[in-house]
Amino acid sequence: MKNDFVIKDRGRKLLRFLKGNQLDALVLIGVPSLRYFCGFTGSDGALLVCADKVVFLTDSRYTSQAQQEVMADKIVQHRGKMEGIAQLLDEWAARSIGFDAEAFSYAAFDELRSKSVPECRWQPLRREFKALRGVKDDAEIAIMRQAARIAAEAFYEIRPQIRPGAVERDLALALEFAMRRRGAEEKSFPFIVASGERGALPHGVASDRRLRDGELVTFDFGARWQGYCSDETVTLALGTVSRRLRDVYDTVHQAQQRAFETIKPGVPLRDIDQAARSHIGEQGFGEYFGHGLGHGVGLEVHEFPVVSPRSEDVAQTGMVFTVEPGIYIPGLGGVRLEDTVRVTENGYERLTSICKEYSSAIV
Amino acid sequence: MKNDFVIKDRGRKLLRFLKGNQLDALVLIGVPSLRYFCGFTGSDGALLVCADKVVFLTDSRYTSQAQQEVMADKIVQHRGKMEGIAQLLDEWAARSIGFDAEAFSYAAFDELRSKSVPECRWQPLRREFKALRGVKDDAEIAIMRQAARIAAEAFYEIRPQIRPGAVERDLALALEFAMRRRGAEEKSFPFIVASGERGALPHGVASDRRLRDGELVTFDFGARWQGYCSDETVTLALGTVSRRLRDVYDTVHQAQQRAFETIKPGVPLRDIDQAARSHIGEQGFGEYFGHGLGHGVGLEVHEFPVVSPRSEDVAQTGMVFTVEPGIYIPGLGGVRLEDTVRVTENGYERLTSICKEYSSAIV
Repeated sequence: MKNDFVIKDRGRKLLRFLKGNQLDALVLIGVPSLRYFCGFTGSDGALLVCADKVVFLTDSRYTSQAQQEVMADKIVQHRGKMEGIAQLLDEWAARSIGFDAEAFSYAAFDELRSKSVPECRWQPLRREFKALRGVKDDAEIAIMRQAARIAAEAFYEIRPQIRPGAVERDLALALEFAMRRRGAEEKSFPFIVASGERGALPHGVASDRRLRDGELVTFDFGARWQGYCSDETVTLALGTVSRRLRDVYDTVHQAQQRAFETIKPGVPLRDIDQAARSHIGEQGFGEYFGHGLGHGVGLEVHEFPVVSPRSEDVAQTGMVFTVEPGIYIPGLGGVRLEDTVRVTENGYERLTSICKEYSSAIV
Repeated sequence: MKNDFVIKDRGRKLLRFLKGNQLDALVLIGVPSLRYFCGFTGSDGALLVCADKVVFLTDSRYTSQAQQEVMADKIVQHRGKMEGIAQLLDEWAARSIGFDAEAFSYAAFDELRSKSVPECRWQPLRREFKALRGVKDDAEIAIMRQAARIAAEAFYEIRPQIRPGAVERDLALALEFAMRRRGAEEKSFPFIVASGERGALPHGVASDRRLRDGELVTFDFGARWQGYCSDETVTLALGTVSRRLRDVYDTVHQAQQRAFETIKPGVPLRDIDQAARSHIGEQGFGEYFGHGLGHGVGLEVHEFPVVSPRSEDVAQTGMVFTVEPGIYIPGLGGVRLEDTVRVTENGYERLTSICKEYSSAIV
């Protein structure tokens, strides 16, 4: 059993949440929730919480793993997950029940409801619940730094292969292998390698296209380490690019700096987005920046909070999110630069480390 | 646009399903469903079907991809998925609506319901809907053969590395890389490499354990190719193993043969399970075979049908499923042998090809 102290503290967060929302019980089944709140690293289980007890349910495949990993008052081996959950809730006489509405499929929830007593009132857990993982503790930050380090080292390893003639897909695969050889459990998401005109696609998953001299190429990639994701984007220049592409690069780089400068506790996240967005607008590229500035990262590559013009949250010490302005011009190409940052007491610090200066971007 | 004819035929299946179940409309969002019924290979979209129209909804990231790939009467770019679905259903005045209850999270369904008119009656689609993909056509079989071939070639490439001293995790990674270099889009699932006593874990994902002389080691692996999964398990002997382990191997091998011999159209799937199970029982290992004999494979690595003592379905020409008996003895080790087979008019044929004879299993 590891990190008992940390996990116990997270259990207390759940308990406060339970009481604050007048719930009798919580039912969590999402893999990230299970890992975070009780330490379980397997792929299937359920965590049930009431005011005075925490029980972990799993099947025979995972019982011994759960006994080693899970912090709970009791570990129960079920013979049918929804049946097991319903039975325990009934034993507790729980009536007002919060459940992880994004982790439950409709079919699974429907089964749970049909096996439970009709008096149960089911409360889908939403943003406030996701916010419980929004502030990262020191243990999480250490892991996330290591995830970013693995990804960066892998990137440096393959950087010499990034040259005219190379195929996007081959580079993506080489980058993934380099991460996995360094111990990454997985890639955080399918890598984006978008060169030339394809750089105008914000989600240009690696294709069979060959890189050419005088183009830009964008790499958006990350490693998963101890369950946590890294997320970073670089755009490289293959030799000398046109004046216009260089302007695009500089504008995105400046926009990212403007966003960085606004980050500190108490600042509305939409203001951080606005700092980058208004700079891009002033330079005449406003119509080419269509997505939000960033998103939370942690056990999921996209998690709470959102950093966009519609954000309703405020920066807090320990929050981790991406800062990734981009400009995408159809027919020409695009630039995105992304770092993952942690909000500190006085500002921010980067968890990702690859230099985004243009002089470092020329290959 | 590829396979227009095949996709159109699948569209007709949906239409018959719609009418047979007295539904006004179907709402599909699962990635495998979208690929199968309209040819879309992206990760986010919705297919809406009514008696006289098929519409594909997606967002700006995927519009141009959908225009190239999707067979539908119309492709619509939405600005909010659930809003877009609700609006279209309302235009159609659809009231009785079937939806993909396993692909919708509770949260997504709840959003859709809240944006729809209150007269809508929502029908979760279940087994009968999944059964629509249960019989594979020739195009699918050709793809699945190729997926299995990629996995087997990769396995043969790394086979010389399977020897005492090798680490399970390194072998799993080498096997994955070998598949990906051959063009596999992904692994089908996290590979199982379970040596020695770990062979007693049916889901022994590769660990840091080193292989030793005189042990058995089980590899359960598969490649994804054009969206389709392969699934195959071999157990190898590292030199000479104990008499008891050899008995276990032979029993599992015979059990698999017994199951094969029963496969033909019209046979209840539970009888195929029983053929293997009763042989294992007769040899005195009954208590060590705890899982079902197999499962359907296709766009998902586990899909319709189930092959177990509780199966309610009957073998049909074109069904594809695994045949994977196993014996797992705590403290000693285990054996599982798995092939993916297609039901033919007269019996079956294997889509996986690695020889499971003991003489071929010695390294």
